Amino acid sequence: MDPFFREADSVATVNARMAEDVDPRLATVLTSLVTHLHAFAKEVQLTQDEWGTAIDFLTRTGQLCSAERQEFILLSDILGFSMLVDAINHRRPPGATENTVLGPFHVAGAPIRKMGENICLDGLGEPCRFHGSVLDVDGRAIPGACVDVWSDNAEGYYDVQQPDIQPKWNNRGRFFTGEDGRYDFIGIRPTPYPIPDDGPVGALLRRLGRHPYRPAHMHFIVSAPGYQPVVTHTFVNGDEYLDSDAVFGVKESLIAHYHEATGDDIRWRSAFDFVMVPMQETD
Amino acid sequence: MDPFFREADSVATVNARMAEDVDPRLATVLTSLVTHLHAFAKEVQLTQDEWGTAIDFLTRTGQLCSAERQEFILLSDILGFSMLVDAINHRRPPGATENTVLGPFHVAGAPIRKMGENICLDGLGEPCRFHGSVLDVDGRAIPGACVDVWSDNAEGYYDVQQPDIQPKWNNRGRFFTGEDGRYDFIGIRPTPYPIPDDGPVGALLRRLGRHPYRPAHMHFIVSAPGYQPVVTHTFVNGDEYLDSDAVFGVKESLIAHYHEATGDDIRWRSAFDFVMVPMQETD
Repeated sequence: MDPFFREADSVATVNARMAEDVDPRLATVLTSLVTHLHAFAKEVQLTQDEWGTAIDFLTRTGQLCSAERQEFILLSDILGFSMLVDAINHRRPPGATENTVLGPFHVAGAPIRKMGENICLDGLGEPCRFHGSVLDVDGRAIPGACVDVWSDNAEGYYDVQQPDIQPKWNNRGRFFTGEDGRYDFIGIRPTPYPIPDDGPVGALLRRLGRHPYRPAHMHFIVSAPGYQPVVTHTFVNGDEYLDSDAVFGVKESLIAHYHEATGDDIRWRSAFDFVMVPMQETD
Repeated sequence: MDPFFREADSVATVNARMAEDVDPRLATVLTSLVTHLHAFAKEVQLTQDEWGTAIDFLTRTGQLCSAERQEFILLSDILGFSMLVDAINHRRPPGATENTVLGPFHVAGAPIRKMGENICLDGLGEPCRFHGSVLDVDGRAIPGACVDVWSDNAEGYYDVQQPDIQPKWNNRGRFFTGEDGRYDFIGIRPTPYPIPDDGPVGALLRRLGRHPYRPAHMHFIVSAPGYQPVVTHTFVNGDEYLDSDAVFGVKESLIAHYHEATGDDIRWRSAFDFVMVPMQETD
């Protein structure tokens, strides 16, 4: 390879520079990245000013990151990149519950609660009974499955976003299935909320004519020995943002039916079964 | 377009989300960026761990940036991306002097000096006489051209990197051509130096089995009314890093002959003619 730079050979020149004893996976990933980055610049004939704008955008995105804020994950999210990586790594057979993004608000170690208990500790919002079964792909109950759930409160904030206002572990809990594989708990009907949009990512959304909202959803991590963990949400049917989730998290199979339970003091009901597939040897 | 996320349609789903009244150029650039980013992830089947590594890398890269350090430009440089963008935006006919990267060490407003003067103020290094002509593509002298030059000192540092050690404007100056279009000044034979390699970019270079050195070079910005500015370097022929410049800045046409001038008190001589093309209407 010609070691000197020429526009037409730019990809080959850069990739030929890698040493021969580089970790093979790193070589594969970097070679592909350089190939696609250069193809992008050539396709759009990127100008110097646009390059400068990109450098500045990436710099501000990095500088906004802190223990409480991860602007690069937000950027990945709004470009559909987080969902794509999740999808690539969690392909499942038809009928199995699909994954969606974990999101930044999961907290490990939520209180273990008994079936039927209420995870809403601030008394706000419209109570909703969540129930269903954890099943294998043949429809058999999975006992001993952990159903780890969390949602925002009625005002659209997770407890960790308002540590001085919300009770600790508000709208969070873990439930373990018995022999029947069933789960059943009371939370609230979740509410839509915007992703943080006061940084570079929010500014980009506005320039793209996109809003920052996520449709209302309840988070679940369902895990059981021998099965692939299911990291997912259920979405509230009819939510106004279902077809425009700012982070592209909605899969059609994850839209759950929420219906009013007349004659019950728990106003809403949402039934959803989780179907798990066995762990693969590579998991 | 289906608004719900599916791996196979990820690009179309994300790009369809843009509003219709978005700035057309932004739409073009973002559409292409999303297309290539998703193609990259699919091609290498990017894992969640690798995605996490990338988020962390970008975050640390952004957080290292300051008024004195631009790690994202370094990243762009070592991936050949800066050179590519420069090449796309500065295509010139055969025979015209080619561009290369500006680099981070240019300072506007260097002292205007008379032809033949010495720009090396710290007395270090091997003196070198730089001379030649500024010409148009038909070989005619261009009078009134500004030749703005800068280089590292004999120890491989620019004056702005060592403000407490080097004299201000050390190895910098501006020279204006007369009717004959000639320039002539004394500097030093420049020395190779490493780009800053104590951050994420340096760590990446090491993992790729690449060194951080740039071959020795003298920087030039040659400008004249009615002509496209030439932002370039001349490289020292025979330099050990000519075929492995960490930032891919070397073009074959920019390798200059440096020869020993026997019998002169100025040990080295380097002749190089700059050939300028007229300004385009879009410049």
